[in-house]
Amino acid sequence: MSDKVIEKWGMFEVALSGPSEGNPYIDVALEASFRFKERVVRVPGFYDGEGTYKIRFMPDVEGDWTYETASATPALDGKTGSFVATAPGKNNRGPVKVRNKFHFAYADGTSYMPFGTTCYAWTHQPLDLQEQTLQTLAEAPFNKIRMGVFPKDYPYNTNAPLHDVFMPDDDGKWNFDEPNFAAFRHFETQIGRLADMGIEADIIIFHPYDRWDHANMPAEQDYRYVAYLTARIAAYRNVWWSLANEYDFMIDSKPMHQWDRYFQIIEENDPYWHLASIHNGDVNANYDHRKPWVTHTCIQNWDVKRTAEWRETYGKPVVNDEPEYEGNILQCWGNITPQELVHRYWITMMRGGYIGHGETYQHPDEILWWAKGGVLHGEAPARIAFLRNLLEEDVKDGLTPRGHSGEWPWSRVSGAADGDVSYIYLGEHQPSIWSTGLPKDDAAYDVDVIDTWNMTVTPAKVVTAPEQHTIRHGDIIRGGKPDAAFGVELPTQPYLAIRVRRRT
Amino acid sequence: MSDKVIEKWGMFEVALSGPSEGNPYIDVALEASFRFKERVVRVPGFYDGEGTYKIRFMPDVEGDWTYETASATPALDGKTGSFVATAPGKNNRGPVKVRNKFHFAYADGTSYMPFGTTCYAWTHQPLDLQEQTLQTLAEAPFNKIRMGVFPKDYPYNTNAPLHDVFMPDDDGKWNFDEPNFAAFRHFETQIGRLADMGIEADIIIFHPYDRWDHANMPAEQDYRYVAYLTARIAAYRNVWWSLANEYDFMIDSKPMHQWDRYFQIIEENDPYWHLASIHNGDVNANYDHRKPWVTHTCIQNWDVKRTAEWRETYGKPVVNDEPEYEGNILQCWGNITPQELVHRYWITMMRGGYIGHGETYQHPDEILWWAKGGVLHGEAPARIAFLRNLLEEDVKDGLTPRGHSGEWPWSRVSGAADGDVSYIYLGEHQPSIWSTGLPKDDAAYDVDVIDTWNMTVTPAKVVTAPEQHTIRHGDIIRGGKPDAAFGVELPTQPYLAIRVRRRT
Repeated sequence: MSDKVIEKWGMFEVALSGPSEGNPYIDVALEASFRFKERVVRVPGFYDGEGTYKIRFMPDVEGDWTYETASATPALDGKTGSFVATAPGKNNRGPVKVRNKFHFAYADGTSYMPFGTTCYAWTHQPLDLQEQTLQTLAEAPFNKIRMGVFPKDYPYNTNAPLHDVFMPDDDGKWNFDEPNFAAFRHFETQIGRLADMGIEADIIIFHPYDRWDHANMPAEQDYRYVAYLTARIAAYRNVWWSLANEYDFMIDSKPMHQWDRYFQIIEENDPYWHLASIHNGDVNANYDHRKPWVTHTCIQNWDVKRTAEWRETYGKPVVNDEPEYEGNILQCWGNITPQELVHRYWITMMRGGYIGHGETYQHPDEILWWAKGGVLHGEAPARIAFLRNLLEEDVKDGLTPRGHSGEWPWSRVSGAADGDVSYIYLGEHQPSIWSTGLPKDDAAYDVDVIDTWNMTVTPAKVVTAPEQHTIRHGDIIRGGKPDAAFGVELPTQPYLAIRVRRRT
Repeated sequence: MSDKVIEKWGMFEVALSGPSEGNPYIDVALEASFRFKERVVRVPGFYDGEGTYKIRFMPDVEGDWTYETASATPALDGKTGSFVATAPGKNNRGPVKVRNKFHFAYADGTSYMPFGTTCYAWTHQPLDLQEQTLQTLAEAPFNKIRMGVFPKDYPYNTNAPLHDVFMPDDDGKWNFDEPNFAAFRHFETQIGRLADMGIEADIIIFHPYDRWDHANMPAEQDYRYVAYLTARIAAYRNVWWSLANEYDFMIDSKPMHQWDRYFQIIEENDPYWHLASIHNGDVNANYDHRKPWVTHTCIQNWDVKRTAEWRETYGKPVVNDEPEYEGNILQCWGNITPQELVHRYWITMMRGGYIGHGETYQHPDEILWWAKGGVLHGEAPARIAFLRNLLEEDVKDGLTPRGHSGEWPWSRVSGAADGDVSYIYLGEHQPSIWSTGLPKDDAAYDVDVIDTWNMTVTPAKVVTAPEQHTIRHGDIIRGGKPDAAFGVELPTQPYLAIRVRRRT
């Protein structure tokens, strides 16, 4: 019995001393076999600079584990050890996986509905700003954050990163065979802090916003970087792989077969098969998310009423990371009203998808949340918190949209159900009475009207038969029968939803 | 030289006495050849009841016309006459035709931008309500109206029509071989009154909202009715043929080849080849508007950012008649906010399409404008008037959208240009400064900010280089060059447009 104790889905780390001469990043390989009873898990290790090598492992069952390293380098070969995996602690529910085809859950079985935000380069900012970002996240409704390994060069993003990710050669050119280990250590430290807060880290491996030529590395160096990153951080339970932001904007330097290969390298090096996807730039350039290594459909698209179509096309959970951001900057992906963003949240979720947040208000010091973090200025997050609380109260297995893509009336209004709860989001529709899609049977229901912007939940005024027929249809009834067992009276105003809960 | 004088694009009518025994509607055919110099135009006639036969003709050139009738019925054969076509009067610009591929113009060359409304059954209402509808139209911004030949049976539409369109048999069943000539006379009287007001009549020939079995007539009776209607009303210059509202909801009783045949019957009997199209119900059921007899794409679709796609798919003018209506009724096609409808107007027109109005507010007596006419209650018409005036001030040849369908940034924001004027409609976007798509050259421009909801036009605060670079892009400029020669400062609020007029 070992005296080393690690909680299940925590991280066990083996550190070994080995050669530091030459370029161990390229030349030295090591791995370990972790054993639980008869089960063996192969885990790649990685070089962490100054003659230190590490192997990290996330156990997924409680009990006694042993390991043995293997390497062509004698100093790293045949090292053995053991540890005990104990019950997970608070905020540790394990990694998130796909469940029920279109939804997610933690490994412990708890339902997980992603409410993500976006701070692409927050780990590359000054440390005090990073602390502020973490403080903001502690109060915010987000349980996932999109963040890049590489720093960012882009409008509003011109400051030097805290750490360079690779080292320069003597001639000043970046040497993509020389990682800056301090950069990776800092990056994974922040992943760990997010894990402690119960926030998933959606790791963006490549992006095109670049003045360091990260987007133009040769394929061989790309492949090595992807394998290295996977070996370093896969043992963090909250990691999701996002192969790229706007991969199509790099398609000239990284053709499609390379993107496929990155996915495969991750599969080959990530023993846990974390969630993996890839995000498009142009609305017509979705990656083919049907490919087997894609766990969920990652998408950038403002046309959120198409959510059911994407579910049907790819057959996987849909996460629309970039439905445009609340803000007022020049770029049109970053200047929609908070009302519109909240509207797109409701539309997406009430069509069985998930959606991400970003905020891009002009700032005198160019500290825009979407890139650098800091504090939130917008009006959407409070409404997102309201929505999250509301759904987490009732939704167990994930929301299934009403009707197939394009089917009346669900192409116009949005509706979804899970178990005994169903919702209809009316959005830009402002009926004074509504019945379409309400229950047709005589069961007892609790019906509420939700004002999604003003964040109120009010018991609905329900109109039952026979009066409803007069109110709803004049003297005749469409199709010869009523739409529903009852209608709901509503104020003539936008952004309302109806919640129907069957009494059990 | 004849003493009969008709203005060009007016209506010349020949009335003849003939047999009234049997069923002349079925048994008697007549036509006339109208001659101008060496040109001969064949015009079918029709039976108008009580032994009266008529042939109507709309001359399209000024000068001396003669005619001669032809019929197998001796009383109707070989009748001759003449008239003089004179210059058109006020409000008479001739029929509307397609011009510049995606746009319309009157026959006299005046540009015509359709700003249509919808009162499906207004001619079937009590006469005083019809008068009120005409008074409303006289003050409203609409220059086209969608209206059905047949009365309507539907929620809010249960009252008896002013006239039955066909006569009942002795057993009480409708006899589709016995038109009620009074119904047709009344219908065309109202078409003529619209013509006098400069309003195009978009005539809906079939629709599914029916308790008279009009939607289920056998094909032979359909074909006869279409030919008869064409013979009766084609000489009204303001007629547009709309083969159906929601044709796909009748596809079980009227298969696709019948719809094609109706178009052909119209072509065979309408010497003027008025505009002709057909309107879908389900958003996935567009008719194939590429077919040669379709002059323009008629569509029902709420997803108005797809307008450029429809232009590209069908290569014809796009008229989205039913982008959902302002109102608050139960049906989700009839309860969007006025803000949303005005928003959809701007999006559609700033993507090179045209869009129709409808209004469906609950009314204690079920007088909803969309079906019965009456008065307007909504807030959209004033904004539509504002938009129409604004466009008619500058647009000459029709608006061409910026970029192809799906092209950045025109998939997100909407832009269009014609000659020296261009517009960018920002809608749900609220940038504090904007430059994308603004001119790149050094010409002089007048730039205005349009508040589409509050109906104001304000000279823009323009930010010119070099300050714009700082404001727009931090220290770097996307793509290495500025977006435009200048940027426009804007308040952070939705529903704004930018108008740019090149000084000439």
